Amino acid sequence: MTHPSASYSVTLRCEIQNHPGMLGRVMSAIGEEGGDIGAVDMVTVNAKVVVRDIVVDTCGEAHGEAIARRVSLIDGVRVLSWSDRTFRVHEGGKIALAPRVPVKTRDDLSMVYTPGVGRVCQAIAADPSRVYSLTAKGNMVAVVTDGSAVLGLGNIGPEASLPVMEGKCVLFKELAGVDAFPIALATQDVERIVDAVAALATGFGGINLEDIASPRCFAVEPRLQELLDIPVFHDDQHGTAVVIMAGLLNALKLVGKPISEVKVVVAGAGAAGVATVRILRSAGAKQIICCDRQGALYAGRPGMNAFKEEVAAGTNPDRLRGGVAEVLRGADVFVGVSSPDLIGAAEVQTMAKEPIVFALANPVPEVQPEEIEGLAAVIATGRSDYPNQINNALAFPGIFRGALDCRARRINEAMKRAAAEAIAGCIAGEELSAEHVVPGIFSKRVVADVAAAVRQAAQASGVARLE
Amino acid sequence: MTHPSASYSVTLRCEIQNHPGMLGRVMSAIGEEGGDIGAVDMVTVNAKVVVRDIVVDTCGEAHGEAIARRVSLIDGVRVLSWSDRTFRVHEGGKIALAPRVPVKTRDDLSMVYTPGVGRVCQAIAADPSRVYSLTAKGNMVAVVTDGSAVLGLGNIGPEASLPVMEGKCVLFKELAGVDAFPIALATQDVERIVDAVAALATGFGGINLEDIASPRCFAVEPRLQELLDIPVFHDDQHGTAVVIMAGLLNALKLVGKPISEVKVVVAGAGAAGVATVRILRSAGAKQIICCDRQGALYAGRPGMNAFKEEVAAGTNPDRLRGGVAEVLRGADVFVGVSSPDLIGAAEVQTMAKEPIVFALANPVPEVQPEEIEGLAAVIATGRSDYPNQINNALAFPGIFRGALDCRARRINEAMKRAAAEAIAGCIAGEELSAEHVVPGIFSKRVVADVAAAVRQAAQASGVARLE
Repeated sequence: MTHPSASYSVTLRCEIQNHPGMLGRVMSAIGEEGGDIGAVDMVTVNAKVVVRDIVVDTCGEAHGEAIARRVSLIDGVRVLSWSDRTFRVHEGGKIALAPRVPVKTRDDLSMVYTPGVGRVCQAIAADPSRVYSLTAKGNMVAVVTDGSAVLGLGNIGPEASLPVMEGKCVLFKELAGVDAFPIALATQDVERIVDAVAALATGFGGINLEDIASPRCFAVEPRLQELLDIPVFHDDQHGTAVVIMAGLLNALKLVGKPISEVKVVVAGAGAAGVATVRILRSAGAKQIICCDRQGALYAGRPGMNAFKEEVAAGTNPDRLRGGVAEVLRGADVFVGVSSPDLIGAAEVQTMAKEPIVFALANPVPEVQPEEIEGLAAVIATGRSDYPNQINNALAFPGIFRGALDCRARRINEAMKRAAAEAIAGCIAGEELSAEHVVPGIFSKRVVADVAAAVRQAAQASGVARLE
Repeated sequence: MTHPSASYSVTLRCEIQNHPGMLGRVMSAIGEEGGDIGAVDMVTVNAKVVVRDIVVDTCGEAHGEAIARRVSLIDGVRVLSWSDRTFRVHEGGKIALAPRVPVKTRDDLSMVYTPGVGRVCQAIAADPSRVYSLTAKGNMVAVVTDGSAVLGLGNIGPEASLPVMEGKCVLFKELAGVDAFPIALATQDVERIVDAVAALATGFGGINLEDIASPRCFAVEPRLQELLDIPVFHDDQHGTAVVIMAGLLNALKLVGKPISEVKVVVAGAGAAGVATVRILRSAGAKQIICCDRQGALYAGRPGMNAFKEEVAAGTNPDRLRGGVAEVLRGADVFVGVSSPDLIGAAEVQTMAKEPIVFALANPVPEVQPEEIEGLAAVIATGRSDYPNQINNALAFPGIFRGALDCRARRINEAMKRAAAEAIAGCIAGEELSAEHVVPGIFSKRVVADVAAAVRQAAQASGVARLE
């Protein structure tokens, strides 16, 4: 990191001699070392010393250590301890189970558990649809991974993926009131993933597949959806595609180009790339060229798997060949869901007038926004420290909220398009600008608007079980 | 039910004319109809009418309806609605996910989720044992069923089993602070159960198997325990056996008979029966006869599965044959985990002096306690409305609490025996009586004592990962 961030913040516990000016010396030392000071709490105080907890955002783990060392060199100051705040947040896990009913007395027990619960079981056995109202199923989503494509970290395995899955569950609850539970599967085999999820799905109203590597993810999702009558939604594909689509809708509005007439280059043919191509097609885009590491996909190109062949068959009507730089010439839109520093200003200059550049590789984008300022009409990234963050958290909470609320059997293309339009619609005409094509993830409207749009689309397309 | 119970309680919402004496009439009518009145709340009042919610314990669903009808016949009273309180308790499910960390700001997000979470993932990838401290795993138990033997209801399937599993999760949390999550598997095949649980176990510190029919349960548990390095514990077997053992230890103390010298008849060779035989043997009992529906098991008897053969090989040294009534002659202890009304006073009269009778079939025991009052020295049942309720809830919360606290790899026989002794030990010498051989499940000491004993036994027997 080049600038201090909360994700690298530390708490320094310092014992400071109780003289005027001492705290200032500590603060100055931290500032000189490049740390960004947050909260400063007093822990204890007596006539001789003050113990304080000082929160400092840093640029990385080594930077945190350097700041602690520097502070400890000040005469009259001892660093008693320092802790990494991010690790502290994760200590003991980020989720717990909360009973929704009390069990303090025998009477409680006789209703919550035996013998009373028996009648509730029998009611569900007699009418299985009552499982939605008499258990937690109706509001419960499984966040399922195999740990094979976790963030940008790759195949780190199921144990190491758990902090991400728990974080996602926290977001589900905080943003949309959806109860979600992490399931990290100890297998990366398609058949075993499908079998395990099909077996465990009973108590869930939806399955959010997460961080499953491509092309495996393309096989797992439809197989599961065929077996289950609840939505199965691979967020790395569809959540990302929905938010990209939302941003594009607003960006195209700004430059006044209809989607049916633009040429779009999608760099990356993994989970997000393939899903982006699909949603763009379903929204009416006709000129799409999708590239993998070997360059543009076109019908009949050698070395493609079945999923890329499907993409190739429905895109690149002129069968353009070559790398991203070549096919980007004259394009109106670049969507990168690939790798760092893939293109530069030179390539963007070859694009059509008022080009739109979504450089979403994380944490290092396909092109640094600074490099193409003034060249691109709209720039979006996956990062929170630039304008226009394309963040799945704009989509998945509202999409599942809407799907659960109408007991949808699946999340179909119409529902995804409706979600994209709802996200785009959260920015009113006068708010829309090149630096504001998607709302912020803490924007209050987003979840409610997306949920309502998804519910209506589910009902209109016949996959809702509740009206 | 022959007497009103909270498990059949209803809330009557009544609009009552606002005259003196009217509420008395309503109360009298409910009393005459045999309802037991609990809380009476006022909802609204004006000069003409009062609306009240009246909680009434009833003997069953028809009884609740009869009471509502009777009240509605009173002049000046309208029953606006009536609802079954047990169903209301289960409405929307009994569990929710609770975030343990806030996500209200971008800084929160950058620590709880991306980008900060990436470092936490990497820390676990580098040292997998950190998954216990950096995720919820260390305090999380899966309550897993296939819905094949739910309460006394039998094979009602996974959906209908969910209210029981959620109830169990609530008990885990309320009694022992253990986070537990229900997993109802949509398969009743041993291989598929084992595969699914092995795959989903990553995020859990223990597996509580629940309501899985025998003999399948005897195959599933050891297979899973071999695959996993966390405890796999079938509560219908071991939880029940532990509490039976605890009660027996105290009952034998009362009658002054050492366990090594008593003759015990166990009626029932299902999950609970087989596990009871095992724990009795491991506690030193030498004269055990286990009966199934065909009568006593003995080595070489035809028509036994592998699990019954194992039981037969280690019990019934004299190879007694015949039904329960026959083998019960001269026995010191009867443990029934079988079916209603299996024996009567006549059979108990053939037992040795000061016989101990645990009649645990639920809700109707093998013999009604009233029938053998004065004949048996100690009587226990599975019911909350008689003394000495043998209830798994005395065992499983403390056993898992202890196992999780020391990161035990399994729950072995030494830990189960320690749990039984700790439960028995919760009753001090002067409190011990024929009507008080096990503590009540809300007794504050039980979980802490059981957890401590289990932890020590785990450490002494080498299965604990934390000292």
